[in-house]
Amino acid sequence: MKIRKSLLVMEKESYADDNAYIPEDAVDCTQGCNPYGNHPDLIKVAKDAVVGSIYNYPHGQEIYEEIEKFWGVGRENIFLSDGSIGGLYEINNVFEEPSAHVLSIAPTFTDATNIYKTRGMDYRYVALDPEKNYKFEVDKVLEAMDPADSILYIDNPNNPTGQTIPLGEIEMMVKEGAEKDIAVIIDEAYGDFITPEESAANLLGKYENLIVVRTFSKAFGMAGMRAGYVMASDLIIKNINKMSNPYCMNEFARQMGAVALRNADFALAHVDDFVKSKQMLKAVTGKNLIMAETDDRVPICMLSHIDPEVKLAKVLAEAGVIAVDASEFDTIGVSAVRLRVPSIDKMEKVCASVAKVNEG
Amino acid sequence: MKIRKSLLVMEKESYADDNAYIPEDAVDCTQGCNPYGNHPDLIKVAKDAVVGSIYNYPHGQEIYEEIEKFWGVGRENIFLSDGSIGGLYEINNVFEEPSAHVLSIAPTFTDATNIYKTRGMDYRYVALDPEKNYKFEVDKVLEAMDPADSILYIDNPNNPTGQTIPLGEIEMMVKEGAEKDIAVIIDEAYGDFITPEESAANLLGKYENLIVVRTFSKAFGMAGMRAGYVMASDLIIKNINKMSNPYCMNEFARQMGAVALRNADFALAHVDDFVKSKQMLKAVTGKNLIMAETDDRVPICMLSHIDPEVKLAKVLAEAGVIAVDASEFDTIGVSAVRLRVPSIDKMEKVCASVAKVNEG
Repeated sequence: MKIRKSLLVMEKESYADDNAYIPEDAVDCTQGCNPYGNHPDLIKVAKDAVVGSIYNYPHGQEIYEEIEKFWGVGRENIFLSDGSIGGLYEINNVFEEPSAHVLSIAPTFTDATNIYKTRGMDYRYVALDPEKNYKFEVDKVLEAMDPADSILYIDNPNNPTGQTIPLGEIEMMVKEGAEKDIAVIIDEAYGDFITPEESAANLLGKYENLIVVRTFSKAFGMAGMRAGYVMASDLIIKNINKMSNPYCMNEFARQMGAVALRNADFALAHVDDFVKSKQMLKAVTGKNLIMAETDDRVPICMLSHIDPEVKLAKVLAEAGVIAVDASEFDTIGVSAVRLRVPSIDKMEKVCASVAKVNEG
Repeated sequence: MKIRKSLLVMEKESYADDNAYIPEDAVDCTQGCNPYGNHPDLIKVAKDAVVGSIYNYPHGQEIYEEIEKFWGVGRENIFLSDGSIGGLYEINNVFEEPSAHVLSIAPTFTDATNIYKTRGMDYRYVALDPEKNYKFEVDKVLEAMDPADSILYIDNPNNPTGQTIPLGEIEMMVKEGAEKDIAVIIDEAYGDFITPEESAANLLGKYENLIVVRTFSKAFGMAGMRAGYVMASDLIIKNINKMSNPYCMNEFARQMGAVALRNADFALAHVDDFVKSKQMLKAVTGKNLIMAETDDRVPICMLSHIDPEVKLAKVLAEAGVIAVDASEFDTIGVSAVRLRVPSIDKMEKVCASVAKVNEG
C-alpha cells in the first residue's frame, strides 16, 4: 500500500500510553496532569447530565463565552480541540506542505515534534545547552529563525524541564516571526500553572502570526475529557476551520471546561505545594542527579544522572518512583527522566527514593 | 504566512455546525444522530462517574475488549478515534502525500471528501447517475480504480442517500484494491442501522488493505461524546498509531462505548419505525419530489425537486421541516436535501409538509 514514505522509516516517539502499568506501591510521577485533581463542580456536570448531551452533536456554546471573557478574544479567534495535542494537529494541517520548514528547541514536547517528523516536514531544533543546565536562550532561537520557516514551535512552560520563558522573550520571537513570515506556536499546555499575565495570549490581536495553544488537561485536571483550545488571528482560525469539523470537543468537556474557567482559581490553588515539592526535590539532588533549569511553580522537571550510562527511569522505578524515560526527547539520553511531582503528601517517599539515587 | 496553498483557494463544504438554529415549531431533520436517543444505561455512566475519570488521561480498556468480542478482531486491529471523522483524519495521515490519488463516489460524506480536497490530494469521483436514481454501480467503481490510487473511500450506508451496498460488492472493491495496491476505506458511520452481518468488518483478516470505520454517534446515540473506531490490518493500525496519540477517545466515551456495545440491540430496536417512516415519506413523494435510491432501515435519505431551480431546503424550512441543503455534496444542486427522519411521532407533521411541496 502507498503508505507515506516518511512514516515507514520511523518508529513513534511518545511516552503517552493509555494502558501504562504502575506498580501498586510505587508513586506515579509520569503523566502531566494535576495531582490535586480538579474543581469539585466538575463532577457535578457529569452527575447532572441529561441524555441530550449524549445523543446530540456537541453544541455547548458557554465554553466559547468563558474563553472570550477570560482572554478578551472573539469567537472568531477560538478553535476548540480534543486536548492541546488535537489543536497542534489541526494547526499543522494549515501549514503542512512537503517543503515546510519547522523550527523548535530540544528538548520539547515529543508528540509535537513527532507531528513534524512523521509528516515528512523539514524539522530542525535549537538544542538547549546542557552546559548551561538546559536554560532557554532566546538569542539562539532568534538567530536560527529563517525566512524559509513555516512554523516556530515553542512550549512554555517547557516540557520536560518545566522552565518558563518571560513574556518579553516570547514577544521577541513572535515579532521576529512576523518579520520573517513565520507562524509562531506557543504551546501553553502547562500554562495554567503560571499566571494568565505571563501568557502569550496577551499578545493576540497584536500579531497575526501568533498561535496560542491551551488545554484543560493539566492544571484544570481534565485530562480524561480531551479538552483544549487554540487562539489565533481570524486568518489562522478560519483556515483551521476549513480543514476540521466543529465537533472537536465533546459535550461533557465543553460543559466542564466552562465551569473550570469560571473557577480558574483552582489551577493556581496548589502553587505553594508545587513550589515546596520542587524545592524538596532540589534539596535531595545535586550530587549524582542534576535538575535542569525549571520554574518551581510548574509541577514537572527533568532530572539527569551525571553518568550517561545509567538508565535513570529504571533505577528510579526500582526505588519506587515511576517517571518518564526522557530519552524519548531529542538530545536527551536514558540517564534523564521527566518527573511530575505528585501531591505533597507523597513527596517524602519520592524524596527518599531520589536521595538514594543522588547519593549513589 | 505559509498557509497550505490548496487551502487558500477553497471554502469549506460541510453542513456540520455546532451552533445551528432550529426554529421552535419546526421538525429538526438535519443531523444524522439517532432520533430515539440511546440506551438508558449510558446516562448511568455519567451519574456514576468518579473524579479520576476526569483528571486522569483516558485509560478505559473495556471498550477495546468489547470491540474485540463484537467483531472478532485483535487489539492490534483497533484504533479508537474522536468520532468516525476523527478516524478518517488519522487514516488519511498514513496515506497523504502530495502525489496521492483518491477515488470516491458522488454524492458521499462531504467531511470525508473535504479532507482529500483541502490537503491538496488528487481527488476524483464516480458520479452516481441521476438517471438511475443515484443507485450505486459497483462496475463503474471497479473500472475507475487505478493502480496509481492510494485510497478508495466508500461510505456504506451512503450519506446522503441512505442506500446500502451488498457485502459481495464491497468485497469486489476490496479485492480489486488488493490487486491494485489501493487501501479501501469502508465508512460505516450509519452501519449500526443495518446488521453486523452486512459489515465489511467480516472481511478483516482476509484483506490487509481494508479499513473499516465505525462510530457510536449514529445508531448508538452518542454523537455528543465523540466516539468512533477504526478497524484494519496490523500494518495500517501500527502506522496510524505512529502519527497519533493514544488519548483519542475521552474516558466517558470509552466507558459509554463499552456499555453501548454490550447493549448493541438498541441500535436496531427502532428499525421498524425507520422502515415505516421511510415508507410514509415515499408515499408522499413521486410527483415534484423524488427520493434517491435508499435502504428503508437507514434513517437518512435524499429528496430532489424535479425543478433544479427550486431551493428545496428553503422551501421545506418554510413548511416547517429543517433538512440539510444537499448542494454541499458533489454533483448535487440546491434542489435536493438530505433528510433524516425524526422519531415516528413527528412523521405526520413531516409528511404533511413534504406532501405539500410534492404536490406543488
